Amino acid sequence: MKAIPDGTVTSPKGFVAGAVKAGIKASGGLDLGILFSPNFCMAAGMFTANRVKAAPVLLSQQHVAKGRAQAVVVNAGCANACTGDQGMEDAIEMAQLAANRLGVIRNDVLVASTGVIGERLPVDRIRDKVGDIALSREGGHDLARAIMTTDTRPKEVAIDAGDFTIGGIAKGSGMIHPTLGTMLAFLTTDAAVGPEFLREALREAMDASFNMVTVDGDTSPNDTVFILANGMAGSVREGAEGAGVFQQALTVACGALARAIAADGEGATRLIEVTVEGARTVGDARAAARTIAGSPLVKAAVHGCDPNWGRIIAALGRSGCEMDESRVELSLCHVAVFAGGAASAFDEAGLSAAMGGSEVPIRVRLNLGEHCAVGWGCDLTAEYVTINSDYKT
Amino acid sequence: MKAIPDGTVTSPKGFVAGAVKAGIKASGGLDLGILFSPNFCMAAGMFTANRVKAAPVLLSQQHVAKGRAQAVVVNAGCANACTGDQGMEDAIEMAQLAANRLGVIRNDVLVASTGVIGERLPVDRIRDKVGDIALSREGGHDLARAIMTTDTRPKEVAIDAGDFTIGGIAKGSGMIHPTLGTMLAFLTTDAAVGPEFLREALREAMDASFNMVTVDGDTSPNDTVFILANGMAGSVREGAEGAGVFQQALTVACGALARAIAADGEGATRLIEVTVEGARTVGDARAAARTIAGSPLVKAAVHGCDPNWGRIIAALGRSGCEMDESRVELSLCHVAVFAGGAASAFDEAGLSAAMGGSEVPIRVRLNLGEHCAVGWGCDLTAEYVTINSDYKT
Repeated sequence: MKAIPDGTVTSPKGFVAGAVKAGIKASGGLDLGILFSPNFCMAAGMFTANRVKAAPVLLSQQHVAKGRAQAVVVNAGCANACTGDQGMEDAIEMAQLAANRLGVIRNDVLVASTGVIGERLPVDRIRDKVGDIALSREGGHDLARAIMTTDTRPKEVAIDAGDFTIGGIAKGSGMIHPTLGTMLAFLTTDAAVGPEFLREALREAMDASFNMVTVDGDTSPNDTVFILANGMAGSVREGAEGAGVFQQALTVACGALARAIAADGEGATRLIEVTVEGARTVGDARAAARTIAGSPLVKAAVHGCDPNWGRIIAALGRSGCEMDESRVELSLCHVAVFAGGAASAFDEAGLSAAMGGSEVPIRVRLNLGEHCAVGWGCDLTAEYVTINSDYKT
Repeated sequence: MKAIPDGTVTSPKGFVAGAVKAGIKASGGLDLGILFSPNFCMAAGMFTANRVKAAPVLLSQQHVAKGRAQAVVVNAGCANACTGDQGMEDAIEMAQLAANRLGVIRNDVLVASTGVIGERLPVDRIRDKVGDIALSREGGHDLARAIMTTDTRPKEVAIDAGDFTIGGIAKGSGMIHPTLGTMLAFLTTDAAVGPEFLREALREAMDASFNMVTVDGDTSPNDTVFILANGMAGSVREGAEGAGVFQQALTVACGALARAIAADGEGATRLIEVTVEGARTVGDARAAARTIAGSPLVKAAVHGCDPNWGRIIAALGRSGCEMDESRVELSLCHVAVFAGGAASAFDEAGLSAAMGGSEVPIRVRLNLGEHCAVGWGCDLTAEYVTINSDYKT
């Protein structure tokens, strides 16, 4: 199992993609794209936990429920959320326009939108431009750019698992928080798998990847993850071994995208990777890793290269994770800072310098059990505030 | 029932206070203080929900458990948290030093500390300076200043309830979040009430005040609220009416301090007041108000005077509050922005100008039931990041 250099969502056999500039993004970049498999696909989707669900989410939930699909059409620049009945009409038309372009039926097209909430989708621009989308085996790179909003770089991955390949793209940046506190992510594979297996594998991969990323604690009404499996590489090996390989490859692919989302959080200058070990339950380990990675005070301290480890212990304490302060061991950038209920002696200036790198590892050993988890976040910067104070008006 | 101009924690009969500069705060300001009643008091305390509890919290929990106390000793500049057995010894010595100064027994002294986590309390400085604390009827103002850390102004209140008076001071600013996501607050009253009644009244007042404030979602290991009741004004009227008046006065006093804490959040330039009406349950209303007031994206939009109401709806949607998007009505600075599942027509430039005031009211009508709640927060600014990137090193 290995990463494919320059791999993307069209790396698995039989997938094509493309994108155009439709004038939906204020910046004028690529903002309308399609992912397509001429062969029919098994499909699964996971959607935002927010009670406010955007029209494309509501529509795609219906379309993916049958476990099959053939295409994804996506736009950036407008979320088509909080848009009432008009929003649903617009999402349906967007699916129909893509279906017409591809020669498939509307129910086999999944739809996603990202951008400003509360504004009507400019369907006329989609109608004008959808025919201009050129689909190709290299088009995954353009599609990865087309879904970006405040992202500073595209997020792409492909994993060669021997018998089959898994590819994916994602966008993140703001409003990123677990429980499907994510964003948009589209995954593909040429493995032949059934829809129920696909759905469970996606759920399991997400719990260890996208659901362990937090940028700002806000969950958007548009969060969506799709996976399409076209079977062109043939069946995964039967039994537990084949399923295990598929699960592992999918989790690795999702993990790489999740990490890339955290590292490119709005305004971020560095990635925070929190590893929690020795927890009584996996739920405890995950709650602790997410709470630490999401604490504004920890994030600001990391930004300032301030080895203020007390904020990490305080975040651990409010995470709900079972803990015994006297048994906790904490290291920051591989330097032991807390053990036995009190501060360890360490070189503050040296640790502060180490925190200036692009990745800041935080490791917590609870010494209570066997479970562990990894969570990702990013530093909190004045740039985050600037971006979010001036997004719309 | 009315607010007393320039009222403070020493406004109720029989309370004295004072503070000195003991050199614990890096800034060199007042940082060590005492609140005292020569008459014995009924007492109650509420403490942080964080599993990591500072030594003064653990000690004060023991001391207040008997329902009586006579003094509070407090320092700023060092939290005495994550300091192990040494921290507890230091907290005990701090209580003993105050007890010696006041001629009372140590178990009747409550202790609080606020400041940097993980550093040893400089007990020698407390030993040197505790004798210099001059106690007076006007000393509440100095005590309010002594407990400040990154607060920019003291927070004081006193309510004249006719038969009795309630006074209080608080400090807040960072690491402010519900569930006793508060800070330090010390309340006093000259009403004669029993300890169980006092404790229940404090809990009820807090649910509608300190627990409805959020600055950054972080809860400190030191959060503490004390109330002392010395009985010098005589008993509150018997029965439900007298209890109701006391409860109302205490809730008003706590609410005024809570609002002051939100308005003076770290780096804040304006107060966000979120009112949620028509909720199915009070828990729903409170969850919705707190989630909206605490959303980084809402906070940043308020800072930028950006009427990006979609972020408010998105925060409402992830709050867990029962809602029906098509029935929600939302107003921002008294301008209707969302109803019937879609945007209302409004003057964006005019609303943006209105958001430039010192208070930004957000009102949500859920139209599902009879319950309501008010929550407070503040805008998210680059200054918050600056303060918290450079707090310690």
